[in-house]
Amino acid sequence: MTVRLTESAMYRHAWTTPSLDAILAEDARLRTWLRILAVLADCQARLGIIPGAAATAIAEDAQADRLDLEAIAARTRESSHSVLGLIEGLQATLPDQAREYVYYGITVQDLTDTWFGLVMRDVTAILRADLVRIETACLRLAHEHRATVMAGRTHGQVGSPITFGLKAATWADETARNIERLDEGVRRWAVVQLAGSTGGLAFFGEQGAELRALFSGALGLGDPGVSWTSTRDRTAEFGATLSLVTGALARIGNEIYELQRPEIAELSEPFNSAVVGSITMPHKRNPEYCEHLDTLARVARAAAGGLLEGTAASHERDGRAWKAEWAFLPDVALAAGTSASLGAELLEGLVVHPEAMLRNLGDDGSWASEQVLVQLSRRLGKHRAQALLQSAFASDGSDVATTIAVAAGVDVADVQAWMDVPNTTTATAMVDGVVARLGGPSR
Amino acid sequence: MTVRLTESAMYRHAWTTPSLDAILAEDARLRTWLRILAVLADCQARLGIIPGAAATAIAEDAQADRLDLEAIAARTRESSHSVLGLIEGLQATLPDQAREYVYYGITVQDLTDTWFGLVMRDVTAILRADLVRIETACLRLAHEHRATVMAGRTHGQVGSPITFGLKAATWADETARNIERLDEGVRRWAVVQLAGSTGGLAFFGEQGAELRALFSGALGLGDPGVSWTSTRDRTAEFGATLSLVTGALARIGNEIYELQRPEIAELSEPFNSAVVGSITMPHKRNPEYCEHLDTLARVARAAAGGLLEGTAASHERDGRAWKAEWAFLPDVALAAGTSASLGAELLEGLVVHPEAMLRNLGDDGSWASEQVLVQLSRRLGKHRAQALLQSAFASDGSDVATTIAVAAGVDVADVQAWMDVPNTTTATAMVDGVVARLGGPSR
Amino acid sequence: MTVRLTESAMYRHAWTTPSLDAILAEDARLRTWLRILAVLADCQARLGIIPGAAATAIAEDAQADRLDLEAIAARTRESSHSVLGLIEGLQATLPDQAREYVYYGITVQDLTDTWFGLVMRDVTAILRADLVRIETACLRLAHEHRATVMAGRTHGQVGSPITFGLKAATWADETARNIERLDEGVRRWAVVQLAGSTGGLAFFGEQGAELRALFSGALGLGDPGVSWTSTRDRTAEFGATLSLVTGALARIGNEIYELQRPEIAELSEPFNSAVVGSITMPHKRNPEYCEHLDTLARVARAAAGGLLEGTAASHERDGRAWKAEWAFLPDVALAAGTSASLGAELLEGLVVHPEAMLRNLGDDGSWASEQVLVQLSRRLGKHRAQALLQSAFASDGSDVATTIAVAAGVDVADVQAWMDVPNTTTATAMVDGVVARLGGPSR
Amino acid sequence: MTVRLTESAMYRHAWTTPSLDAILAEDARLRTWLRILAVLADCQARLGIIPGAAATAIAEDAQADRLDLEAIAARTRESSHSVLGLIEGLQATLPDQAREYVYYGITVQDLTDTWFGLVMRDVTAILRADLVRIETACLRLAHEHRATVMAGRTHGQVGSPITFGLKAATWADETARNIERLDEGVRRWAVVQLAGSTGGLAFFGEQGAELRALFSGALGLGDPGVSWTSTRDRTAEFGATLSLVTGALARIGNEIYELQRPEIAELSEPFNSAVVGSITMPHKRNPEYCEHLDTLARVARAAAGGLLEGTAASHERDGRAWKAEWAFLPDVALAAGTSASLGAELLEGLVVHPEAMLRNLGDDGSWASEQVLVQLSRRLGKHRAQALLQSAFASDGSDVATTIAVAAGVDVADVQAWMDVPNTTTATAMVDGVVARLGGPSR
Repeated sequence: MTVRLTESAMYRHAWTTPSLDAILAEDARLRTWLRILAVLADCQARLGIIPGAAATAIAEDAQADRLDLEAIAARTRESSHSVLGLIEGLQATLPDQAREYVYYGITVQDLTDTWFGLVMRDVTAILRADLVRIETACLRLAHEHRATVMAGRTHGQVGSPITFGLKAATWADETARNIERLDEGVRRWAVVQLAGSTGGLAFFGEQGAELRALFSGALGLGDPGVSWTSTRDRTAEFGATLSLVTGALARIGNEIYELQRPEIAELSEPFNSAVVGSITMPHKRNPEYCEHLDTLARVARAAAGGLLEGTAASHERDGRAWKAEWAFLPDVALAAGTSASLGAELLEGLVVHPEAMLRNLGDDGSWASEQVLVQLSRRLGKHRAQALLQSAFASDGSDVATTIAVAAGVDVADVQAWMDVPNTTTATAMVDGVVARLGGPSR
Repeated sequence: MTVRLTESAMYRHAWTTPSLDAILAEDARLRTWLRILAVLADCQARLGIIPGAAATAIAEDAQADRLDLEAIAARTRESSHSVLGLIEGLQATLPDQAREYVYYGITVQDLTDTWFGLVMRDVTAILRADLVRIETACLRLAHEHRATVMAGRTHGQVGSPITFGLKAATWADETARNIERLDEGVRRWAVVQLAGSTGGLAFFGEQGAELRALFSGALGLGDPGVSWTSTRDRTAEFGATLSLVTGALARIGNEIYELQRPEIAELSEPFNSAVVGSITMPHKRNPEYCEHLDTLARVARAAAGGLLEGTAASHERDGRAWKAEWAFLPDVALAAGTSASLGAELLEGLVVHPEAMLRNLGDDGSWASEQVLVQLSRRLGKHRAQALLQSAFASDGSDVATTIAVAAGVDVADVQAWMDVPNTTTATAMVDGVVARLGGPSR
Repeated sequence: MTVRLTESAMYRHAWTTPSLDAILAEDARLRTWLRILAVLADCQARLGIIPGAAATAIAEDAQADRLDLEAIAARTRESSHSVLGLIEGLQATLPDQAREYVYYGITVQDLTDTWFGLVMRDVTAILRADLVRIETACLRLAHEHRATVMAGRTHGQVGSPITFGLKAATWADETARNIERLDEGVRRWAVVQLAGSTGGLAFFGEQGAELRALFSGALGLGDPGVSWTSTRDRTAEFGATLSLVTGALARIGNEIYELQRPEIAELSEPFNSAVVGSITMPHKRNPEYCEHLDTLARVARAAAGGLLEGTAASHERDGRAWKAEWAFLPDVALAAGTSASLGAELLEGLVVHPEAMLRNLGDDGSWASEQVLVQLSRRLGKHRAQALLQSAFASDGSDVATTIAVAAGVDVADVQAWMDVPNTTTATAMVDGVVARLGGPSR
Repeated sequence: MTVRLTESAMYRHAWTTPSLDAILAEDARLRTWLRILAVLADCQARLGIIPGAAATAIAEDAQADRLDLEAIAARTRESSHSVLGLIEGLQATLPDQAREYVYYGITVQDLTDTWFGLVMRDVTAILRADLVRIETACLRLAHEHRATVMAGRTHGQVGSPITFGLKAATWADETARNIERLDEGVRRWAVVQLAGSTGGLAFFGEQGAELRALFSGALGLGDPGVSWTSTRDRTAEFGATLSLVTGALARIGNEIYELQRPEIAELSEPFNSAVVGSITMPHKRNPEYCEHLDTLARVARAAAGGLLEGTAASHERDGRAWKAEWAFLPDVALAAGTSASLGAELLEGLVVHPEAMLRNLGDDGSWASEQVLVQLSRRLGKHRAQALLQSAFASDGSDVATTIAVAAGVDVADVQAWMDVPNTTTATAMVDGVVARLGGPSR
């Protein structure tokens, strides 16, 4: 039974992906938890902490599909302990001689934070792959449209021309920095937890640090060197970084959403004929990917805020901050992972309408105001020219070129020439620079 | 398959309650959605918009347990439309003559926002009931401990004595205001949505407003008078109010958490012998209710922030803000509902240790500094007395009463008398005032 | 010296108003603080707690302009106490016999929270007045444009027609609810604080409660009945409510921002010829009010979140939450007050372009899809008609009316007739309903 | 005139530092802005874009102290343009031949974002220096108290012993990661903005990219390669990273706050005899640094959330997100900078009370439950031993060692031996490991 729309059979596909399910879904989680316990037991056996036969039995018999999940859940509720039910459930699947050696000497966070370490590593890998797809798609768009003229827009108003390639280049540029952040961050996040009761690993006597090193190596995670049960900068940085990723994708989504308006019509989401836009307005084609990128960024940001708050924890375990991570960390991972998957699909299928881009510059010459300013600045000085043009464009005269020429004492043909062709030479050169820096259009 | 720890079979009991499940769980939601559609069809039939037989068939045959949820989910994914799959699923359960009349002329938000209206109403009712339990328990504690002396604490340091009743009275007082807020807010939240495609209800010609009025009345909800598809102050206020509720309960939780420290030991959570505190430290009894109240407040606050953000929506439907509510509104409802249920149980079973309260005043006389200040103020002036006492308490002299007496030129026996008994007369009177105002200890 | 752009001489006008300065600026605050202290002294004198002559001297001599602010600041830094510097500064302005009786027996929060009570009351009054202006302007727009046809827009796409009056009516409707919330909330917020050291008012012996009642009455604030030093639902509700106000205004701002795009051009901000849009693009006219409404909503929401967090405080004073209010409460008040002032100016001067509204419906007939759906639903059934129309509008045929007629087996002239005139009868009626309910267009 | 408590003469010292003032205060900002404009003019002159004499005049004459700030502010208000007033103010200080060449061809964000680049670089440097002080102080504490036994605390309850050095080692460890994050992030943040009107740098024809490279080099900032006017991941990452820093310091603050409670008394803030704890309770010594670290973390987190939201901007300039940065970026810089400065002072003066640490383990033997568990696990199996001990510690028997011995069938003297001395060997070894890894106690 699920109780959130985001988890419902009908709607969960909009809030997760099969790859994320393979990491986070309950059955996947239980399998990973048992793998962690088996790896731990193996390491403990190698150090002589538990018998080798017990470790072998745990590896072989502690299988998620043998667990009585309902009984485990009932015992979890009753004991109010996060893993006691699981331990007892596991013991029921194990031969006698192994029962006392599963989950040996560790505490809940050793299991769940180590799982978080794996989750953060694996979600980062998925995200990274989708961000590379996104970067590649943006670089391709940038390259193909390096000289496709369109309106630059500031404050929602048409301004000096740019090229669509320049816009796509800023998307690629931001994405490249987000990949960099993931690469830097994951080195900090992908670690095990092995802290024991209060961080001192006293249960394992003098073998604690060695056990942690072995355990880390066996799971392919880093060794944190010290307990991080209340040191939550790792999960907080993970959340903040994923929120940067979803924010960047929301920017792309919002941009396309605006440029897909029928009055603008410069970009379109990939069209899928199976999609139904509206039940009451049969003509509608909605920018659904785009909207959802913004929605997911809100969800990610809310969860990231909760994770940042968790850094101010107390003592050797702080249930207040810690359990809040149980809500926020999966939320941010799901929102970001879904967002990147959606974003890749959106950008790989994006439809560009260069003719509309050109048309939207408008025919009143105002798009050229900066080009005229450049020329007049040389003649009148920059700030005098600005004032003159501000006044010329505000006047209702039908022919702005003439108004300008008269006011500036220059030839009207010159003004017309300055207003003739959008100057996007530097924009195009910058696109080429970004594309080259980030490895070419087919990176 | 669930993908959040908060939804998992093992842990969901900490993030919802049976009462909340009865409102929000997927099967309950589908039942309510079908009821909304049946009520709508009935109203439409009464106005002659659809045939009466169709409405009857919809009421009788559109049963949640006949729906093929898997097929509906598949069609929802394929069409990317929130309810097309459901409509087709419903049509499959209906006789021919009713199939075209289910979900007649409305749009997704008419269904889902009306459901939100019901959810907000019903969650408010549950919350209110638990807040009344909490208020009652706090008033009882306030009354019973009206004169139970304990340290007032400011900045975590022991200060002038209060009574435990005074602390409990502030809990009751805040809870009473939260009940008031729910009562005021629910009049705004508990409304239907009937907006049609873009808010103008054009589908129903001149009958739109009448249909909405009938529909509202039949569901026991208010008639909003106009579309609120992008006017999201209702859901935002709901979230903010529920966040106030969880914040107040987190305050109580944090207070008890601190006072349950073994070094302080003035309060204890209700004890349940089935509960296991720690697997590695068998002696532990953790303040789990208290911690979880704070955890839930974090979750509620994050979701409330997302709902507040949703007020800045655009046009006649804004998928970005709207779909974010699908994540945030259930989240805030679940966090607040669980928090209030937990809070009621905690306060009804709270254990008070008056002897520890008295002991923690300490034996160095510093708790009495204000009482001495009162007396010396009459003799020396208030600010002079303050400076004198600040200096006396900072000195290392073993007998502070003597130090004060000497410095102030008063009799040491007088000083000792001023430091003898905690003066909590006014505190006690204030407790009585709050208890009386809020309706007595057995409200 | 100021250190925030929002406080800088150059930019502060965008982040405050003269009315807000009159409440919150440092000199205004000091005057109000002295008034609070004078009122308190007067009440204390009436109860015989201090000599009448002292109270008179405090009222007469404790004038803000006599304070040596630099010395006070230096002493505040040195003592690290929030008001010790002020007390000593005040004492320097008082005659001997009054010096010991200023700030008599109270604690910092008694002063600062009482000031917060006044601030919340007075900011609410300012906000309310601007919201009434906004509501009135929206009702006037709604009434004047009750039948001005424009595109309804969902997901940024043109949908079924509405009227501009309907849009303005939703603005008025939301504003009316925000006024209601302020009216309900201010009864809770506008209270004094008189708690003494730890809430028990022990300093005043048996006169504490009476003093608080007198003090409240004299300041025109409510009597809270009990300490609220750590009970911060009042400030949190204030913040959340103000965030609702700014969110609603951001919605209006975002709507106008979008509709002022040159490609849409349905609305314009009031024009002021002194305004310079761009230094580099002399033709630009930017929707600056609109953008700033959204900016201010972000600032208000961030501060509101911080205030909500403050509800989870501990013990009888919690410096962590309390001092955070010193940052957040002024921030939310300034953002909301500036927003309402700006919003009133924007809406009172809003320019409407009905011809562009009509033009933007487009000429491909798609705006009429719902009207055709209504008709075909009667003939084919609603869902069959929807599928037929979805397909017809997706086809590339140049004449959609013919495509529909052929597919549906109806007369093309009938289809053309259904697509002829936007049907906004119900929209118009709903506008009239809202206008009537909220008191008429000239409320 | 200031309008925020955080800016007031009386309280600003708690919300900024002299070093931050030197970067962010209005006069410092104006000086830096003029320096940016002078450097730009110099670069433009080197490329022949403006006359060399103009650049020289700008460098010499455009001095902040010659500006008429009041006139500039008035013109800024009137024009509603962020820098037009400044330009005119500057022109008034320049000789005729330079007036047209100041602020030549650039747009507001070129100036303000380049300033943000400098601010982010310089604030990072200040923060980094204070974090190094903090790390050093923590490493010294860790080393000195590597074997100072204290209670580990989980859920606020006394658990297995650790050493104070271990706690301090986790502080150092988190601080080291935050230094690493600053070092990685600043390479992304410390860049210029040179985008021109809409990002294409058209004003400078083919010289745009070269000018940007020169400009970057001259300011010692990085060259972003492309416009970032709406690509706000840099400011958002800055905010998130600074929020991690403040969160980590709030953790330290909260820890010390709790351990400074008189009932615990294991740590004390550095004492300063000039500090006045309370006006009404003359004995109080409050953990003010600690509380304020938490307060500042709240402020930083709220601002960081606002900056993260800004990543979802639109088009080539989005005034909504951008102007919100004007509020949030200084806020987060001030909160974090103040926090790090305070944190360094706190940790360098922290007073440790080892005897209280030992005393708080308690005398009922419960602190040793894990040590007994280790021994019994070898004899009975781990989970059986856990159950036995849970029951033994819950029983009211006066002598828990005997209860355990009887239940486990072992010798009571053995049990007593296991409970004799806290085993913190591994904790101590881990401290040594952290200290060695981070460069020794005197790093």
